[in-house]
Amino acid sequence: MTIQLSTLSNGLTVVTDSFGNVETAALGVWVSVGSRHETKEMNGISHMLEHMAFRGTANQTAQEIAEKIEAVGGHLNAYTTRESTAYYARVLSKDIPLAVSILADILQFPVFREEELERERAVILQEISQIHDSPDELVFDYLQETAYPHQPFGRPVTGQANVVSHLNREQIKSYMMQNYSADNMIFAAAGKVDHQQLVTMMETQFSMVTPETHRIVSLARYVGGDFCTQKELEQVHLILGFQGVDLNSSDYYTASILSTLLGGGMSSRLFQEVREKRGLAYGIHSFASSASDTGLFGIYTSAGPQEAQNLLPVVCDELLKVASTLKEEEISRSKNQIKASLLMTLESTSARCQQLAFQMMTYGRPLDPAEIIDRIDAVESQDISRLATRIFSGSPTLAAVGPVRHLMSYDKLCERLGCAVPKTASIKSVG
Amino acid sequence: MTIQLSTLSNGLTVVTDSFGNVETAALGVWVSVGSRHETKEMNGISHMLEHMAFRGTANQTAQEIAEKIEAVGGHLNAYTTRESTAYYARVLSKDIPLAVSILADILQFPVFREEELERERAVILQEISQIHDSPDELVFDYLQETAYPHQPFGRPVTGQANVVSHLNREQIKSYMMQNYSADNMIFAAAGKVDHQQLVTMMETQFSMVTPETHRIVSLARYVGGDFCTQKELEQVHLILGFQGVDLNSSDYYTASILSTLLGGGMSSRLFQEVREKRGLAYGIHSFASSASDTGLFGIYTSAGPQEAQNLLPVVCDELLKVASTLKEEEISRSKNQIKASLLMTLESTSARCQQLAFQMMTYGRPLDPAEIIDRIDAVESQDISRLATRIFSGSPTLAAVGPVRHLMSYDKLCERLGCAVPKTASIKSVG
Repeated sequence: MTIQLSTLSNGLTVVTDSFGNVETAALGVWVSVGSRHETKEMNGISHMLEHMAFRGTANQTAQEIAEKIEAVGGHLNAYTTRESTAYYARVLSKDIPLAVSILADILQFPVFREEELERERAVILQEISQIHDSPDELVFDYLQETAYPHQPFGRPVTGQANVVSHLNREQIKSYMMQNYSADNMIFAAAGKVDHQQLVTMMETQFSMVTPETHRIVSLARYVGGDFCTQKELEQVHLILGFQGVDLNSSDYYTASILSTLLGGGMSSRLFQEVREKRGLAYGIHSFASSASDTGLFGIYTSAGPQEAQNLLPVVCDELLKVASTLKEEEISRSKNQIKASLLMTLESTSARCQQLAFQMMTYGRPLDPAEIIDRIDAVESQDISRLATRIFSGSPTLAAVGPVRHLMSYDKLCERLGCAVPKTASIKSVG
Repeated sequence: MTIQLSTLSNGLTVVTDSFGNVETAALGVWVSVGSRHETKEMNGISHMLEHMAFRGTANQTAQEIAEKIEAVGGHLNAYTTRESTAYYARVLSKDIPLAVSILADILQFPVFREEELERERAVILQEISQIHDSPDELVFDYLQETAYPHQPFGRPVTGQANVVSHLNREQIKSYMMQNYSADNMIFAAAGKVDHQQLVTMMETQFSMVTPETHRIVSLARYVGGDFCTQKELEQVHLILGFQGVDLNSSDYYTASILSTLLGGGMSSRLFQEVREKRGLAYGIHSFASSASDTGLFGIYTSAGPQEAQNLLPVVCDELLKVASTLKEEEISRSKNQIKASLLMTLESTSARCQQLAFQMMTYGRPLDPAEIIDRIDAVESQDISRLATRIFSGSPTLAAVGPVRHLMSYDKLCERLGCAVPKTASIKSVG
């Protein structure tokens, strides 16, 4: 076993996977806080805090941080999701101490200067505009907002422009105090890394992290409905979503197999029916995304207005018939696809580092790859069939942007899928 | 040395890099043919041929190909550029024979059935529409068309919809015959791979490839000009381009260092000036892209109409002053960034496989990483200074899409940069 696990005296967990035959390492801190922990009035603050962490500390300016890491050819980056915020680096092994010292500094001693805050606010407003010009990204925000209306979990990670325009320094500082505690953080590293050296380094350098904080997270409640926005584009960019499974569900790998089998590759049912047999779209794929207490199962595609109109009934039919027409051959193929991806993850320092952090945040322990493979192998045809019936009989979410005027209506979609229109559905059809 | 090189009896080159401690391999065939080898009437045929290779052979259907590779958890994919077409797979090491047999089949025995051709044509037309909805991709096609007007090298890889609508089976077959010869192909593999076994396998399976063909490639001629299209978007997506260096230029690594230093990371001059000091854009980066006989040096960004208007003079000033204000510290930082990236490439099976194929196509031999590092280290401040002066005094290319009405005019841009408006500039300002 090359995985090692330690806990610092303040409670911060350190997990590493030491690879042979590489000269580089990926390492970072994952904090269990994201946009779902925000109130409506502070939507976007996790993401803004992530940006501000790079904007200077008590010890160095933003430019000095950038220059130090890049002087050794390293990369430093960060991202925010609905449930987590990550700060990570990729460096040559000899530069691990430098990367650790920078991560320690930006996560414990950021100063959030007013002037820097105003500039970073302008940058984030540009980032939000950029998403609005990317229909393939925008439609995912529409999906989330419609699947989880009026809830933190439904709001965009970057926040709305009008909220981001008003977030202030004190709010950001206090949000950090409330959420960046050792019990909410995982330090992960993979590649050419010496676990014990790393732990010794971190014990000194991460000593100012508060051991723990308490907070209440509201559970996400899937609702569904439709959100179709008319926009002058060549294609309709659309997602058909359903309530999926959460990270702790015994159906987690079943959902993953169902998604692979329906839209996970060239041999999948949707790719074959929509692209290969009918030429209706260039790309179509399904996804099963899971969070701690909920999940989405979705199908994404983009196609011209006529093609989008024609493909939606084809997709519905495939979803309806999958439970009763499963073949052992396609199940085995999907399992092999997932298992091979897993093996490829183990060979990449950055993918492996991220996977370890994710497992620690979700399950409190690193999962043995053999254990994951056993769970995948244990899934049987009737499990997939039962899950497909459950998922596709639930209320759908239809999110679309583009020339949507002739797209199947939400009522007709529910009728075609044989499910009732949800009473509380958030119908926001525009155009 | 873990790199091995062989030539099959028909002249096809096989290059491999065998890694320790991995269980997977990346492998594929790179053909030295792309959109620059097409006439105007056949623009898009290299890309269409790449799509059609997957649509069935004399021995198996498209669906059988997809199912076979995915049954073992492998991936099979392809892409077309202006100078090359690649067909590649990623598999567990034990499945290399399967991947080789599929590659051999699709590259020697495709049947191009009429019915399949019509469906694939529809898929490609959807792919072209998708690019039109992605301003960050579309603007690169505008750049190319304006930098190299009325030339094969300036046309889009996917082709124009009206040309793609008419390409026929006979044209595709004859284009393949003319271009897919052993002297134009490289087989590359990296990861857990046994060179000798692979060569033996390939000698039998790739025996039907024509040894050589003759063709004339017209040289690319950089012109420059502007192509700004008004479109209802939140941001202006823009590229400011210049004539750069070709792959065989002694300034190849100099251009790479200049690009890194100007816009290659967080510490780069443009990122610092445009984003960090002024908050004018979320992203800005520069690139030095090279082809066999020409190259482009460009700066890409996207920003709101007001911000785009404000940032263009800032970018011009940075370009003008770089030659006379180079610091040893930033040169050394840029070199380290390039060298660290190179090391990271050596640790990824797919990046390494692609790199080896590229080196064989370009230089006819794999480059020793130490040799590349020596060439990077040999670049001096005055080389960068001389190259910057040469590049930024040439005719610029301005490509933009979005709310472009208030963007600096091309004439003003040339004036600001102190260069004359090119006489033959292809000015295509719309809106």
